[in-house]
Amino acid sequence: MTTNLQNLFNPARVLLVGASDRVLFSAGIARYLLDHGFADRLTMVNASGRAVFDRPAFAGIAQAAGEGPFDLAIVVIPAPAIPDAIEELADIGCALVVVESAGFAETGPAGAALQQELVARAKKRGVRVLGPNCVGTVDTTTKFACVEVLEESLQPGGVALIAQSGIFGGILLDVAPHRGLRLSKTITMGNRADLDESDFLRFLADDPATRVVAMYLEGVADGRRFLDAVTCCAGRKPVVALKGGRTGAGAQAVGSHTASLAGSDDVFDGALRQAGGIRARSLEHLTDLALAFSVCSAPRGPRVAMVTTSGSQGILATDIITDHGLQLAQFAPETLAQVKKIAPSWMTLGNPLDLGPSGIYRDAIRIVLADPNVDALLLHIAIPWGAVRQDFTGRETIYGLLGDPDELRAAARRMPILISHIGHPNFTELVAEAFGEFLPIYPTAERAAFTLATMREF
Amino acid sequence: MTTNLQNLFNPARVLLVGASDRVLFSAGIARYLLDHGFADRLTMVNASGRAVFDRPAFAGIAQAAGEGPFDLAIVVIPAPAIPDAIEELADIGCALVVVESAGFAETGPAGAALQQELVARAKKRGVRVLGPNCVGTVDTTTKFACVEVLEESLQPGGVALIAQSGIFGGILLDVAPHRGLRLSKTITMGNRADLDESDFLRFLADDPATRVVAMYLEGVADGRRFLDAVTCCAGRKPVVALKGGRTGAGAQAVGSHTASLAGSDDVFDGALRQAGGIRARSLEHLTDLALAFSVCSAPRGPRVAMVTTSGSQGILATDIITDHGLQLAQFAPETLAQVKKIAPSWMTLGNPLDLGPSGIYRDAIRIVLADPNVDALLLHIAIPWGAVRQDFTGRETIYGLLGDPDELRAAARRMPILISHIGHPNFTELVAEAFGEFLPIYPTAERAAFTLATMREF
Repeated sequence: MTTNLQNLFNPARVLLVGASDRVLFSAGIARYLLDHGFADRLTMVNASGRAVFDRPAFAGIAQAAGEGPFDLAIVVIPAPAIPDAIEELADIGCALVVVESAGFAETGPAGAALQQELVARAKKRGVRVLGPNCVGTVDTTTKFACVEVLEESLQPGGVALIAQSGIFGGILLDVAPHRGLRLSKTITMGNRADLDESDFLRFLADDPATRVVAMYLEGVADGRRFLDAVTCCAGRKPVVALKGGRTGAGAQAVGSHTASLAGSDDVFDGALRQAGGIRARSLEHLTDLALAFSVCSAPRGPRVAMVTTSGSQGILATDIITDHGLQLAQFAPETLAQVKKIAPSWMTLGNPLDLGPSGIYRDAIRIVLADPNVDALLLHIAIPWGAVRQDFTGRETIYGLLGDPDELRAAARRMPILISHIGHPNFTELVAEAFGEFLPIYPTAERAAFTLATMREF
Repeated sequence: MTTNLQNLFNPARVLLVGASDRVLFSAGIARYLLDHGFADRLTMVNASGRAVFDRPAFAGIAQAAGEGPFDLAIVVIPAPAIPDAIEELADIGCALVVVESAGFAETGPAGAALQQELVARAKKRGVRVLGPNCVGTVDTTTKFACVEVLEESLQPGGVALIAQSGIFGGILLDVAPHRGLRLSKTITMGNRADLDESDFLRFLADDPATRVVAMYLEGVADGRRFLDAVTCCAGRKPVVALKGGRTGAGAQAVGSHTASLAGSDDVFDGALRQAGGIRARSLEHLTDLALAFSVCSAPRGPRVAMVTTSGSQGILATDIITDHGLQLAQFAPETLAQVKKIAPSWMTLGNPLDLGPSGIYRDAIRIVLADPNVDALLLHIAIPWGAVRQDFTGRETIYGLLGDPDELRAAARRMPILISHIGHPNFTELVAEAFGEFLPIYPTAERAAFTLATMREF
């Protein structure tokens, strides 16, 4: 039987096993599904058969059969009862199960044995399992989720997130909207007893909503399969991976977290790169890259134009791109000639183009974007808030300063533009309001520069 | 004549040359000083002798002599007129001048010649100069500033900031309060025609308000003096330096920014370390270190306890401390025995101590801090906001969760505790409200870990 993983994101009928309106975590799942249009698709089961949020619940899986067939079950009952539950689910024809409960291989030998039994029985009955020790999936298009998600995190976008840890996935969902990240789908895999990153990489390769796949892994379930899956996905869209457990001490910590074998870091790194994936160096680097790829293409060449209002930030970013194999573009003579025409006499012409308080930002950006020797633009805006706060009152002010989205998009001709802004949070917010939907914004010029340099690996 | 640099931070009489209520930048200085209790100490001069903010101004420096003697002048007139102004200031007995105007060595050969003349004439007359091409100083205790500063940036604290670039300094002032950084003094040096980082390092060594000196440099004016000055200051308090222009391309950009010679990066790095200074790797690293040193001591040993609600974050931080020469503490048996007594059965005991949703945070932290094998604590809090937002309404909630400041301070016995929080901004704000004044807070466990590891260099 081939499992349709699409059922993890848009099931026609879903069974919640362990439903409750009292147990915090379980109640969150039921409440979320009832509040987001899934009431008609949801059937609930719990040990007592007691109603949940005034909706009937069955006292057992078998008793719920009449409401099926179910193309997905979410299971949040205590770990020891789960192998039997898998059999019962198979009995009523449900072949895809998200096991969210913890208490398996991550807790030691007894838990590992229980997990083995879970896998063996699922396999025997043709049931595919996501988890255990996870919070399942979230889909921002269908709004289906196996966990309670805040409204603000449901804004659809191009970033698919694969995380091993449930908490980690939940936290990234909290952070994403405030970091400018708009998600397509989120998948947390926990102990990966069955379905793993390779399954989801292949699935996401074909997902039209996903423009970039960002992963946090603590190990790879099957090296050969992983290599093939990354190759398949990275041929279609960028795949960025952060791996925990690079070091000996880190790898040891991985064992008691998701019971993964962290494995040799060199082997992981080699396989990922060979397959066309990109290695993120930190959690911030992972989200910085996901943000860039969700709205920009990778630069077609190494020649970077830097336009900045702060000389220091331009210098720091120049150091970073130089460290990582990019270079400052040599502007065409006519570019500098055109800038010179509009520049005040104190301005030094060059790359980085340090505009200081000249106020010629909008025109200078347009001129630089037209230069044929430029493959990417790093734009750094830093103006003391005290100097501008009276005038800067809405996104239109920012458009007046730097150009509006249509103008910038046309001038960029598909060239990536990465903005960085350091300064007062009110200013940062204005910049995000003005450009957040179509340009990636970074908190320092160095982070933008590092992101751009890493994008070149794609 | 010995110059009292204290006059840059608390002058008895100050002369503003180039005062205006129309020119944006100059008007900001006058308005700031008038609004912050310096009206009685301030005399203003401009070419027309026109009143500024309804206060009289003199038409020339000589004419203002009767209001002197001035122990500080701030000069914001066009560059070509400045060498003469220096002489006139000397004539009326003013021996310390902040030159904020640009248009000197950073613009090319003609500007360099002008700067040389400025220095020669100042030297001949015994006048010391800060700048040109800077925004001077800010003192959060006296509230004196040579530039308009937002109220929120004036909250006093232990971080002294030395920056070369004026914009950079201004931006850091904007960012500081929102990053938890409380400043003692800020000094921007611009082209450093005369007074330089070495003068200020020696001055700040003796400044009781300053607990840590954070610098952004684009080069060092005099290598030997710098080494001696860092040695002097770092013997008293941590000195952290970020240098722009590490790479060839970056060094070239430095020339047209502050006309510094970036010099060999290896030489700078060697001298800084030999003198006991700490090299920051990025702007974020610089502020992360300044934040930690302003409220914590460096760890006395390499043994780190990690307490986390997210296994992944603990693993990522473990990788970072291992990369940088720290290690996970081996908890004493009684520590784990005590945690075991209060821990739910699913919790794995170890270091990192992954508390998951156990809720035993407060007690577990207290137990871990009492362990004699621990030199520092990295505490990572990540809880999906949806799960707690109804209960988390004020700082008391956070104290209930993790312990209150008195309790934590007593338990820490001067051991550094670095907190990281990743999650919803409302949650982050609560954590900052609860602990921002006495514990450094970081946006990821990796940043906290890297900061702690670098602190060990002190």
